[in-house]
Amino acid sequence: MRLKIYGDSISGNCLKVKWTADRLGLDYDWVEIDLMKGETQTPEFRALNPAGQVPVVVLADGRPLAQSNGIIMYLAEGSDLIPTDAYDRARMLEWLFWEQYSHEPYVAVARFQVVYQGRSVADLDPKLVARGEAALQRLEDGLEAGQFLVGDQLSLADVALVAYTRLAGEGGFDLARYPKVQAWIARVEAALPIKD
Amino acid sequence: MRLKIYGDSISGNCLKVKWTADRLGLDYDWVEIDLMKGETQTPEFRALNPAGQVPVVVLADGRPLAQSNGIIMYLAEGSDLIPTDAYDRARMLEWLFWEQYSHEPYVAVARFQVVYQGRSVADLDPKLVARGEAALQRLEDGLEAGQFLVGDQLSLADVALVAYTRLAGEGGFDLARYPKVQAWIARVEAALPIKD
Repeated sequence: MRLKIYGDSISGNCLKVKWTADRLGLDYDWVEIDLMKGETQTPEFRALNPAGQVPVVVLADGRPLAQSNGIIMYLAEGSDLIPTDAYDRARMLEWLFWEQYSHEPYVAVARFQVVYQGRSVADLDPKLVARGEAALQRLEDGLEAGQFLVGDQLSLADVALVAYTRLAGEGGFDLARYPKVQAWIARVEAALPIKD
Repeated sequence: MRLKIYGDSISGNCLKVKWTADRLGLDYDWVEIDLMKGETQTPEFRALNPAGQVPVVVLADGRPLAQSNGIIMYLAEGSDLIPTDAYDRARMLEWLFWEQYSHEPYVAVARFQVVYQGRSVADLDPKLVARGEAALQRLEDGLEAGQFLVGDQLSLADVALVAYTRLAGEGGFDLARYPKVQAWIARVEAALPIKD
């Protein structure tokens, strides 16, 4: 059996896993799951992930794994996407946890409400927008020191953070206000590479 | 210089770091930071963590690290709190990321609003309560298979998840509805150990 990736192509969390697998040259089958049709809430899907969320991978031996950032950590183990220095690795994890707590819930959610729920940018919760802007500014500041988020080498921190940052404009955020972020997006897209 | 842990003792995210350091027998100084007095928003604190959040640790060589689950991963590297099997390690990370995305924002936030903002349990946002209950149920289901969240050995998954779960009652959640969770809390408290 080959690695199976269950994901919805509209979800940055799912694309992180695809990009990591592609970059590592892994053989896999992509199983498209339609979030908007409730396909993550079926009994079959919940047997794979009781949390009812994509992405999920099923390993060659049949065992499932969930949580995008946990999955990419597993897939990339031993590769150059994870720094060998212990402190750099910890900084990478700092970005990964920050992404799920302080970035995705604002930057991704704003985009989801605009693109998939038909809300106008002007109608977004101002608190959501302010927190999304704070997250983008935090990224801008984090790129002071290097070409990538952890030093000068592409790592999983870049893979995870680029997923929704590159689409932030769709949620009404003005990326032109974050020039280092804009340049970094182009750099990460070229390095992975991301084709779409 | 010794390891310094900057934390607020009312925060489960900070206590995770303390418990891990204690369990590992690390020498450290605890620097109490008062969240409610805005001490995470001063320029001095933001120089340590631009995200303005506790916990932060400063390593013996002066370098800072943030994000509770990233910090405990760093401190516990090579210890028995991190499974040696790659799949078990990935399951542990799955729990750590799930905690920050699907548990803490509901279970911890309900408690914060009740205990520190003086809101009555009846006035909590019903969506917040429902998501907190779903998180506790997910934990209950996750404890079907073993004594701890990843197999039968204490890991960082238990340390991270117990922090706010043991205090869920303060936010109005009824832990008696989750008997496996209740038994697991006692087990993890005894294993760490947690004294208070």
